Amino acid sequence: MNRAPNEIEVLIAQLARLPGLGPRSARRAVLHLLQRPEQGMRPLLAALERAAACVESCVRCGNISTRTVCEICADPARETGEICVVEDVADLWAMERAEAFKGRYHVLGGTLSALDGVGPEELRIRELVLRVQPEQVREVILALPATVDGQTTAHYIADALSGLDVQVTALAQGVPMGGELDYLDDGTIGAALRARRAF
Amino acid sequence: MNRAPNEIEVLIAQLARLPGLGPRSARRAVLHLLQRPEQGMRPLLAALERAAACVESCVRCGNISTRTVCEICADPARETGEICVVEDVADLWAMERAEAFKGRYHVLGGTLSALDGVGPEELRIRELVLRVQPEQVREVILALPATVDGQTTAHYIADALSGLDVQVTALAQGVPMGGELDYLDDGTIGAALRARRAF
Repeated sequence: MNRAPNEIEVLIAQLARLPGLGPRSARRAVLHLLQRPEQGMRPLLAALERAAACVESCVRCGNISTRTVCEICADPARETGEICVVEDVADLWAMERAEAFKGRYHVLGGTLSALDGVGPEELRIRELVLRVQPEQVREVILALPATVDGQTTAHYIADALSGLDVQVTALAQGVPMGGELDYLDDGTIGAALRARRAF
Repeated sequence: MNRAPNEIEVLIAQLARLPGLGPRSARRAVLHLLQRPEQGMRPLLAALERAAACVESCVRCGNISTRTVCEICADPARETGEICVVEDVADLWAMERAEAFKGRYHVLGGTLSALDGVGPEELRIRELVLRVQPEQVREVILALPATVDGQTTAHYIADALSGLDVQVTALAQGVPMGGELDYLDDGTIGAALRARRAF
């Protein structure tokens, strides 16, 4: 029983579909916006419209960008012969925030998943294979999630690249920075032990 | 270090200003929207535009509405001679969800606050006083937050109404439904004890 007019209910329902927002926080957000038309609603509407109008997918790597070829793909300094394969744009941004990788990316758009019916055609795997020769790629770094689906996808990509003269590597698995063993799951501890290195 | 284009940064900043969303969840929400232009971005834009265009404040009670006089004020069945005074529209909606009140509302738009520099002129107190006689109000129910500012505001309103032939009441304070004493703060227990009633 919510007596809000229908236009507001529709807006609440739309906002509640965003990740991280439920019906309750969507309601608060909508009230915040409606009660501040000048400082809240207008700038958000303008920002959404601008982003919706000018943001597209980079034709090469799948990153989101305001250009046909994204800033990273267009930057000659990042032509290092390395391509980092990520599941989605959020992971690309996470890699960029870490400032540890200077090459280019390839966004798959998901991981293989028998449960969700995601097959290789749904992902941008063919596009990755086709990039190797023209871009003189020496190394493909698989930065995929350490889940069953992520690792299945990694194996599939490694297979797809096996005929080409390119090295396939993957992110190391182990104890995260600041991680205490007592709080880690057994899988991580096992992986870290198997991948132990000389000290 | 976030390599997202400026249009996206602006959108993230705007979304991050909503209550309940921080920079991290705003980033996730923006990616969600940009990667789903048809199912995510367009319906949200349309809903926002429609709400921004047609939602206004009820001239009488301050509720948000698509009409000059809101649905509740326009409903003759709610002309009960009772006005429930709430801090903001969120509280009005909360009262409506409880389905316990059948009269009309008056939205103050905040509470008096020395700290935030909110004086009586900033709130819709004068408008409340002016409603009493023409609407033949018999009872004004103060449903204000049980905070220092809320109770200061309640006292101020009771004073402002003291010259008029109207009963001023306030929501009871006490143990919430399902509340366990062990988890309640001392203030609530004290208030519930002072307001004890025959069983």
